This record gives sequence, C-alpha cells and structure tokens, in this order.
Amino acid sequence: MAGNWERQFGEERSRLNEILLSNAPLGIKRFLALDTQAYEAGALPAKTKELLGLVASMVLRCDECVSYHLIRCREEGATREELYEAFDVALVVGGSIVIPHLRRAAERLEALLESR
Amino acid sequence: MAGNWERQFGEERSRLNEILLSNAPLGIKRFLALDTQAYEAGALPAKTKELLGLVASMVLRCDECVSYHLIRCREEGATREELYEAFDVALVVGGSIVIPHLRRAAERLEALLESR
Amino acid sequence: MAGNWERQFGEERSRLNEILLSNAPLGIKRFLALDTQAYEAGALPAKTKELLGLVASMVLRCDECVSYHLIRCREEGATREELYEAFDVALVVGGSIVIPHLRRAAERLEALLESR
Amino acid sequence: MAGNWERQFGEERSRLNEILLSNAPLGIKRFLALDTQAYEAGALPAKTKELLGLVASMVLRCDECVSYHLIRCREEGATREELYEAFDVALVVGGSIVIPHLRRAAERLEALLESR
Amino acid sequence: MAGNWERQFGEERSRLNEILLSNAPLGIKRFLALDTQAYEAGALPAKTKELLGLVASMVLRCDECVSYHLIRCREEGATREELYEAFDVALVVGGSIVIPHLRRAAERLEALLESR
Amino acid sequence: MAGNWERQFGEERSRLNEILLSNAPLGIKRFLALDTQAYEAGALPAKTKELLGLVASMVLRCDECVSYHLIRCREEGATREELYEAFDVALVVGGSIVIPHLRRAAERLEALLESR
Repeated sequence: MAGNWERQFGEERSRLNEILLSNAPLGIKRFLALDTQAYEAGALPAKTKELLGLVASMVLRCDECVSYHLIRCREEGATREELYEAFDVALVVGGSIVIPHLRRAAERLEALLESR
Repeated sequence: MAGNWERQFGEERSRLNEILLSNAPLGIKRFLALDTQAYEAGALPAKTKELLGLVASMVLRCDECVSYHLIRCREEGATREELYEAFDVALVVGGSIVIPHLRRAAERLEALLESR
Repeated sequence: MAGNWERQFGEERSRLNEILLSNAPLGIKRFLALDTQAYEAGALPAKTKELLGLVASMVLRCDECVSYHLIRCREEGATREELYEAFDVALVVGGSIVIPHLRRAAERLEALLESR
Repeated sequence: MAGNWERQFGEERSRLNEILLSNAPLGIKRFLALDTQAYEAGALPAKTKELLGLVASMVLRCDECVSYHLIRCREEGATREELYEAFDVALVVGGSIVIPHLRRAAERLEALLESR
Repeated sequence: MAGNWERQFGEERSRLNEILLSNAPLGIKRFLALDTQAYEAGALPAKTKELLGLVASMVLRCDECVSYHLIRCREEGATREELYEAFDVALVVGGSIVIPHLRRAAERLEALLESR
Repeated sequence: MAGNWERQFGEERSRLNEILLSNAPLGIKRFLALDTQAYEAGALPAKTKELLGLVASMVLRCDECVSYHLIRCREEGATREELYEAFDVALVVGGSIVIPHLRRAAERLEALLESR
C-alpha cells in the first residue's frame, strides 16, 4: 500500500466508475456531477473545499473518500502541517473510532509526500 | 471479486455463521431468527422487503449487507432497472460517502446479471 | 403533536425551505431537485420508493425525514400493515437505538390513519 | 427538565410504548422482548450491562436512550464516579460530537443524584 | 429561535457546561481543552478550522455543534457565500438526511447576518 | 486470520502508530494519551472499561477497534460467557448491520480462547 498507492487507487477507482457510469440511470449520473461541482473554487478556494471533504470523510470513516481527498488536497497545494491540523480536527470531532482511519491516512500522506 | 463472488461470499458467510451459532448465547440466536423473519412475505412482498434491506444497508454503508441483499433481491426477481433506482434513492439519502459502496455494488450486480 | 401534526409539519417545512431556497447557491438547489426526482415512479412504483426513503430515514434516525416519508407513503396508498412491516425491517437493521424514533413514528402514523 | 425529569420521562415513554405495542406486528414485539432480556443479569451483572447500554447510547448519540440507561444504571447502584468514568469512555470513543449529549446527561445525572 | 437565538444558545451552553465541569473527572476536562485547542490558528487559519468543524458537525447531523461553529465562523469573518458553499459540501457528502439540519442552519445563519 | 491474528494485528498496529506518532502534531499525541487513560482502572475496573470500549466499537462498527478491545478484555480476564453477553448487548443496540462485525469478532474470540 506504500509508495505506489496513489496510482493503484486511481486505476481501481476508474475501473469501477466505468462500470457504474455505463449502467447507472440519469439520477446517479447527475449526483456524480454535483459531487464534482461542489469542490470547484468559488467564494472558498478549492484547497479549502478539499480540506472540508477530507475532514467530512474522516469523521464518517470512509478510507476511500479520505484517500481521494488526500490526493486532491496535495494537488491543491495543502502542506503536511495543514493536513495534520485537519486530521486533528477530524480526530477531536469524531473520537478514537477515527484512529484506525487516521493511521492509514498518515501512512498514505507520508507516501504522497515522499513521492514528490 | 468478479464472476464467482456470489459463491465465495456464501461460503465465507456460512463458515463464520457456524462459528457464531455454535458459541452464541440464546439472545443472539433469537436475534438472528428475528432478522430472517423480518424479510418474509407479508403485507409487503419479499422483493420489496429485500429492497428495503438493500437501501438500509447502503445508507449505513455495509458492503457485506449490501451484497447479501443484492443476491436476495435478484432471487426475488428484482430487475437491473429496479435495483439501480433503489441505488439512486440510497445515494441521494446517504450522500457521496455512499459512492465507494455504490461502485462495488454496481460491479457485483453486473456480475450477478451476467451469470444468469 | 397528535391530530394536526401533518399540517403543522408541512407549514414549518415550507417556511424553512423558503429561507433556504432564497439564499442557497445553485449546487444546493440542484441537490434538492435530484432529491425530489429520486422518488418519482419509474421501474419501481412511487409507493415502493417512499417506503425505501422511510426505512433509510429510520435507520439513519431522522424524525423529520421519517415524518415526511410517512405522509408521502400514505399519499401513495401504503396501508398500516405495510408501514408496520417496513418499521420492522428498519428496527431489525438499525437496532434498539431506533426505538425512540419508532415510537414517535407509530404515534404519527396512528394520527394520520385516524384523520382520514 | 431538572428535578422531575425522571417521572415525566417515564410517563411519556409509557404513553408512546402503549401506542406502539397495541399496533405493532409480532416481529416488533419480539424485538422489544429481546431488548429487555439483553440487560438481564447473567455472566455479567445487570449494572455492567446497563453501563454498556449507556455508553453505546452515548456514542450513537440518542438522548432518550442515554436517559433510560442512566435511570437503570442508578437503579442497579452505579455511583456518580462510575457513571462519569463511563461518560469519559463514551466521549473519547465518540469525540466532541458527543459533547451536547454529555452536557445534558450530566444535568440529568445530577438531578437524579439530588432526588435520592 | 429567530433573532436572538445566538444569545439564548450561548447562555444555555454556559449553564450546562458549568454543571459538566463542576462534576466531570480530569479526563473529560482534558478532552474539552483539546477540543478548544484543535481550532486555534496554526498552519491553517482559525476561519478554515471553524469551517472544518462546521462541515464535520453537519455531516454528523448535530444541530448544536452546527450552531456553535456557525457563530464561530462568523466571528472569524466567514461570509454568507463562503458558508453556503461549505453547506453545499456538507449536503453532497452527507446526503438528503442532512437537509433538516441544513434548513435550520440557513435560518440561523440569516438571523446572524441580519443582527450585525 | 485465524490462530495468529493477535500477533499480526499487534505488529501492523505498531508499525502504523510509529508513522503517525513521528509525524503528528501535539494535539493528536495528546488525544492518544487521553484515549489510553480513559481505560485505566478507577471507580470502574479496567475489565469493565474494556467491555465498554468493546461494545462502543461494535455499535460503531469498527473491526480494528473491536479486535483491539477483544484482546484487552481477555488480558483483563473477561470470559467467553461475559464477552458473548457484551456482544449480545451490542447486537441489540446496533441491529443487524452489526452482524458481519459480530461474525468476525466471534471468529477472533474463539482463536484467542484456543491459543491460551
């Protein structure tokens, strides 16, 4: 899961998205479009919105969503310090039940930071 | 996880159920019986009840429960169109945090549909 | 909360919806439209979709959402027997933590049934 | 909500239970029986089981369930110190999102302790 | 709940905090201190952290937590546009089950904006 | 996952903890310390507190947290009978959505019991 996780993650996500999109009805496709649009820069910059998505994903405890927003946060320029502060907010709000997800997120973040 | 997932899923489920049932106290066994009875045809047909179980499992984000009800929905005759509409309700109620489960459910559903 | 709850509920909901809709950005308005469309009759009849919404709301433990779908289920012709069977599925899936919501839903359902 | 909350709480709970039980199908009634049995003394004493129910209710954030188990914990002899330690576990596991429920539980516990 | 909600909210919160803090053991007090510290400006500005707290509270569906972070976001200078964009992220992540909380948050936000 | 799961589980947990602790800011480290302290013997014995952590983890459906508290419960002397009664409370409170976690917990518990 270390170094190359980002690429493997992206490929699996694309493969499954293709299955979903080639079969899903219009309502599901529209939802996916809305999901993308919610993170576009507006009054809030894209980096802030991705941090919001990251923390929401962490308190709801979804590893895949955390991984996705971690990649996007890095693409928008979020630093290690900023990301660990966002992790801290998520941990305090969500409690110790978040810790297993936090540990995996830390591993993935460190791998992302090393690979650049 | 593709074609044969249904069989592998059933075998692992049986193996673990056996461990649970040979050790669990009466209260747990009674719960498992109630769980089965809740989906039996009554005023609502079994197909509708399985769809209820499917959507409940999806908004609570349990892949195993989704897989189980997906198999049962198909056994009760639910069509691809009906199942994707149920997925749509689950996605709208539960939000984007449901998407990773939805992607995996779509893959599993397509495999079920092909194998018949 | 008894007899007249349906009317009071609808008025408060409309009042707050107006505040939301007159201030919300396009993304939120589109979400609300998607939410409505997800329950329109398709491969599954509207009654079944409202039952799906009801059970999803109950396992996620939102009284307002339960009340809304209870009214809609009745409008689509769901009977007392059908609704209590849907409650049973929600209770088994969601556990005893659902009971306070179930009690209030039963009271509201009985009031709806009496007022017709 | 202060001094007399316990009595008012019990009366409202009984009133709604009666509506539920006089209309609910067998499956729901059996669930309610299982719920009661799960807290009966066995290998674990009733006090411990009520503490389990209290903490589970707190991390799932249900005020009514917390109130119910708080009353039962006191009936089984749990002390203020024991109850605040259970609150602490619930707070750490469930995070700051639990705090509003914790504040209300503290108020209710202090009222229970004063009224004896 | 309109105009003056902020003041009433603060007073009730203080009253209950006092009960909690005068009875809680050290672990709970330390948690409350950690909770405060997590939102202090660091690599991320306080406004961003409060927006993180707001979205986390909304997807976890806690009205009190939403109200608290709404007040704090305004104190840190978040604008109407920024707050509705954060609401949009919360709605998309958390789904329609968030809508009742979103409606109440919109009412409270508009009251905050008018009172300044 | 059978016999040796406890050792493998502990090693993976240590490896990830090290990554987290060598990068996390002070707030996260303090949270982890609070988490440990919450389970230390006080007015309630350590065994009871670990049972509280076990049930909280089960109703919140975190396999890793369940595994951790299962090991700790055994270290504090909890018996098979006591643990299955705690499982029963968790199942009743949390509902059938807990069952997949319960099955895995039963497998892990039986492996722990055999290895001693």
